[in-house]
Amino acid sequence: MAIELKNLTKRADNYSQWYNDLVVKADLAEQSAVRGCMVIKPYGYAIWEKMQRVLDDMFKATGHVNAYFPLLIPKSFLSREAEHVEGFAKECAVVTHHRLMNDPEGKGVVVDPAARLEEELIIRPTSETIIWNTYRNWISSYRDLPILCNQWANVMRWEMRTRMFLRTAEFLWQEGHTAHATREEAEAEAVKMLGVYADFAEKYMAVPVIKGVKSANERFAGALETYTIEAMMQDGKALQSGTSHFLGQNFAKAFDVKFINKNNELEYVWATSWGVSTRLMGALIMTHSDDNGLVLPPKLAPIQVVIVPIYKGDDQLSQINERVAPIVEKLKAMGISVKYDNADNKRPGFKFADYELKGVPVRLVLGARDLANGTIEVMRRDTLEKGTVSIDGIEEYVKNLLDDIQNNIFQKALKHRSDLTYTVDTYDEFKEQIEKGGFILAHWDGTPETEERIKEETKATIRCIPLDGDKTPGKCMVTGKPSAQRVVFARNY
Amino acid sequence: MAIELKNLTKRADNYSQWYNDLVVKADLAEQSAVRGCMVIKPYGYAIWEKMQRVLDDMFKATGHVNAYFPLLIPKSFLSREAEHVEGFAKECAVVTHHRLMNDPEGKGVVVDPAARLEEELIIRPTSETIIWNTYRNWISSYRDLPILCNQWANVMRWEMRTRMFLRTAEFLWQEGHTAHATREEAEAEAVKMLGVYADFAEKYMAVPVIKGVKSANERFAGALETYTIEAMMQDGKALQSGTSHFLGQNFAKAFDVKFINKNNELEYVWATSWGVSTRLMGALIMTHSDDNGLVLPPKLAPIQVVIVPIYKGDDQLSQINERVAPIVEKLKAMGISVKYDNADNKRPGFKFADYELKGVPVRLVLGARDLANGTIEVMRRDTLEKGTVSIDGIEEYVKNLLDDIQNNIFQKALKHRSDLTYTVDTYDEFKEQIEKGGFILAHWDGTPETEERIKEETKATIRCIPLDGDKTPGKCMVTGKPSAQRVVFARNY
Repeated sequence: MAIELKNLTKRADNYSQWYNDLVVKADLAEQSAVRGCMVIKPYGYAIWEKMQRVLDDMFKATGHVNAYFPLLIPKSFLSREAEHVEGFAKECAVVTHHRLMNDPEGKGVVVDPAARLEEELIIRPTSETIIWNTYRNWISSYRDLPILCNQWANVMRWEMRTRMFLRTAEFLWQEGHTAHATREEAEAEAVKMLGVYADFAEKYMAVPVIKGVKSANERFAGALETYTIEAMMQDGKALQSGTSHFLGQNFAKAFDVKFINKNNELEYVWATSWGVSTRLMGALIMTHSDDNGLVLPPKLAPIQVVIVPIYKGDDQLSQINERVAPIVEKLKAMGISVKYDNADNKRPGFKFADYELKGVPVRLVLGARDLANGTIEVMRRDTLEKGTVSIDGIEEYVKNLLDDIQNNIFQKALKHRSDLTYTVDTYDEFKEQIEKGGFILAHWDGTPETEERIKEETKATIRCIPLDGDKTPGKCMVTGKPSAQRVVFARNY
Repeated sequence: MAIELKNLTKRADNYSQWYNDLVVKADLAEQSAVRGCMVIKPYGYAIWEKMQRVLDDMFKATGHVNAYFPLLIPKSFLSREAEHVEGFAKECAVVTHHRLMNDPEGKGVVVDPAARLEEELIIRPTSETIIWNTYRNWISSYRDLPILCNQWANVMRWEMRTRMFLRTAEFLWQEGHTAHATREEAEAEAVKMLGVYADFAEKYMAVPVIKGVKSANERFAGALETYTIEAMMQDGKALQSGTSHFLGQNFAKAFDVKFINKNNELEYVWATSWGVSTRLMGALIMTHSDDNGLVLPPKLAPIQVVIVPIYKGDDQLSQINERVAPIVEKLKAMGISVKYDNADNKRPGFKFADYELKGVPVRLVLGARDLANGTIEVMRRDTLEKGTVSIDGIEEYVKNLLDDIQNNIFQKALKHRSDLTYTVDTYDEFKEQIEKGGFILAHWDGTPETEERIKEETKATIRCIPLDGDKTPGKCMVTGKPSAQRVVFARNY
C-alpha cells in the first residue's frame, strides 16, 4: 500500500486528471477487474459510513424505517411503467442462467445451457418496480398509509463512460420509497426529503446546493416531478447531488396498488422516491480539495485530528507520549476522532504529506521544545496555516478550530459559487459565458425544444428551476417567448 | 398490513410451519416475486440493523475496517482455486448480457443479443476471489500486512430449497477477509473471530453456541480449516450460525499475492475469511420464540418496552398521558427504547396480542385505578408473567427486568441444549437417539468414509469437533478404530 505523495496533478493543469489521481492516491477507491465497477477502499468507505450514519439518523428523525428488497427484478416488471422502461431497461445487467458447469473441453467453467431461466432477471437499476409490486400486498386501506420505507443497497446501471464515484456501473445508495393516501401528502414528502438532502449537503458536507425542479427532459423516468439539489464543482461544472421524485400514481397504476380511502372509495396510491449515492463522495472531493490532496469537512472526516511527535531518542518520545495521552483521552471524550501517530518507521515529513493528502482537518505537532515551552504546533488543513499555541486548553482550541474549518470551507465554496454565477439576458452572451464555466441564470420559454437546442449548441443543460430566489418573469433568451422565472444552466458531470 | 394475530401454528403440531407462520405474522419478512428471494420487512430489518451495529462495533474494536468490493465476479476468477470452484460455481446467478431492447414483436422488452458480454459475470456467492485479486495490488511487503477488511454486502447462491432467513438465494451478510504475514497470525485471527461470533451469539442473541472445528467434509471450499459456532434450535436440530476460515495460502497462490518478508524472502500471503448472515435471524427466532409469537432478547429488540394505557374518555387518557410522559423520557435517557401506544383505533386486547407476537420484552399497562393507587402493571414476554408494582422507580425496575429477561432466556436455552445433549457409545444407541433429535456426543474415527456412512444411514452430520470440553480419547462407535475425542453429531438446518 505504498502511498505516492508526489505527482498529484495540479487542478489548473488538468482538473479531471487531478480528480482521478486524488481518488487513487488518497486511498479512497480504485478500479476493479470488472468494467466500470470500483473497489471502495477502507479510507473512502469510512467517509461513506459517516455519511450513511448521519443520513440514516435524519431519515429516522423524519419518520422513516429501513427495509430490504430483492437485488433481482423480473424483466417483465420493467415494462409495466411505460416511461420507466425507456429510462432503465436500456443498459442493465441481465441474469439469464443460474448454473455454471465444468467445461467439457476442460477449460475452467462455462455456463450450463440447461440452467436457463424462464424469465430473465435484471440487477436493480432502481427499485420502484419490485417495491411497488410488494406494496400491493401491504396496502388495502388508508389506515395502512403512509408507508415510509428506505433501503441502503447496491444498484447497477451499465454506463458506457464511468468515473470513480461520479458514475460507476455498480454504486451504493439509499432509495426511499413512500406511499401516501393523497397527492398533497406525497408532494410534501418529496419536497421534505429534498430539504433533508440540502441540509445534509450544506451542514455536513459543507457543499452549498441549489434546490430546484427538473425540466421535463431531465425528469426521472416515471416521475411527474423531479426535485434536485445541484452543487457547483471547482471547475464551474454542476453536479446533481440528490434527487427526490413525486411519482404521482404511475407506479400504483402499473402494479395495481389501490386503497379504500376515508370516503370508502377505491383509489390508487400516491408515491415518492428519493435517493443519494456514493456520487456524493465525488461532490465532496471536487468541492473542497486542493493541489495538496483532500480537504474534508470535519463533520465527515474519519480522522479529525492527527497528532505527530517530533523527537530524538526514546526518552523524548516517552515524554511526549506521556504528555499526549491525556489530550487524546480528552478529545475522544469530547467526541472528536483523533489519531496519535508515533509510528517510528516513517519520518515526520512523510506523515505530514500523507495526512495532508488524506485531508485530516487538524494536525498537531509536539516536539521537545514545545514540551519545555508548554506549547504545541497547530496546522489547519483548509488554509494550511500553521501556528503555535499553548498546550493548556488545546482540546477546546481544537474543538473550536474544527467548527471554524467546517464553516470556512462552506463559506469558501459559497463564495466560489457566487463568483461563478452569472445573470445573462442574450443567447450570444450565454454562448460566450458557458465556455468559461459556471452557473448561468437565464430566461427560458419552458419548452423541451428550446432546451434541446441549447443543449446541442452549447452542451449546457437546465440544472433546475430554482425553488427559492428571484421569481421575476421575463423573456426567453433564445426565442423571446415569455418565461416564468430564470432557470439555472450549466455544463454538468 | 392487517396483522393476523390468531392461527399461529403450535410448535408441537408442526415446528417447521410454526416458523414459517411466525416470520410472516410477526412482520419480519415475506416471499418476493423472485424465486428464493425474500423481502425483509421493516420490523425484521430493525432487528438485523441492531445486530449489524453490535457486530460492526465488535469488528472495529478488534482492529478491522470496512471496505466494499464489486458485486460481480468474472467467471474465470472462480476457476482459479480448484476446490472453491467446485463449491461455488455450481449454483450461481450468471450475468450474460448488459442490455434489453424493445421486443420486435411488441411484447415488452427482450434481451438484446448484440449486448452479450465477452466474459460472463457471476453475482458473488462469496468474495474471496475478487478480494484476493484486489489484494495483489495492495501487498508487496510485510509492512503492508496485516490487512483486516470487512464488508457488509448482499450475496447470492442459487439454492434449490429455500426458507426465509435460514436459506435464501440472496442474503445479507458480512464477510471479513484478512491477509497476514505468518501462518500463526492467520490461524489466531480465524480463532479470534470465532470468539467474537460466539460472544455475540451468547451475550446479545442469548443463544448458547458450541465452538468447534468442521470435519474435512464440511469445510468451506478452499479452506484448510473451518471453525464454526453451532446452536441448537427448540426442535433439537442444529443451526450453523457463523463460520471462520483459515484459508492458508490457497487464495494467495491462486491470485499470485506475494510479499517480501522480514528476511527479505518472497512468500505467499496467509489468509482468513469469516462471515455471519441474516441466517442469524433464523437462529434468534427458533431459539426463543413460543406459540404466542416472537421472544426477543432485550439487547436486540427494536422496541424494548411498550406502554399501553387503559382508559375511558379523554379525561382519563390525558391524565395517563401526563403520567407516562416523564417515564418515557427517563427510560429513553437510560438508553431504553420505549413506545407509548395510545392510538385510539385499536383495543388494548389487540395491542397486547400484537406486542406479544412481536416479542416486545416488557409491557407496561396503566389504567385509572393504577393512577389512583400509584401502581403499574408489568408483563414480561419471556415467561408471560404479570404483576403490579409501584409506579415510583418503575424505570429502574424495568432496567433490571430487561437484564433479567436477557439472562433468563439464555439460561433457558442453555438448559434446553443440556437436556437434549446425549453421550452415546454404540451406533445402535446413536441411531435410536438421533430419531428423537438433539446433539449426540460420540466417538468417530476421523475418516470421511465413516462420516459419510453415518450421514447416509441417519441423516446426521458432524456439526463440529468441539474446541472446549472433554478431550478424552476413545473408540469410534461405528468402526471401533481410535478416536481423539468425542464430536458433536446432529441433524441440522
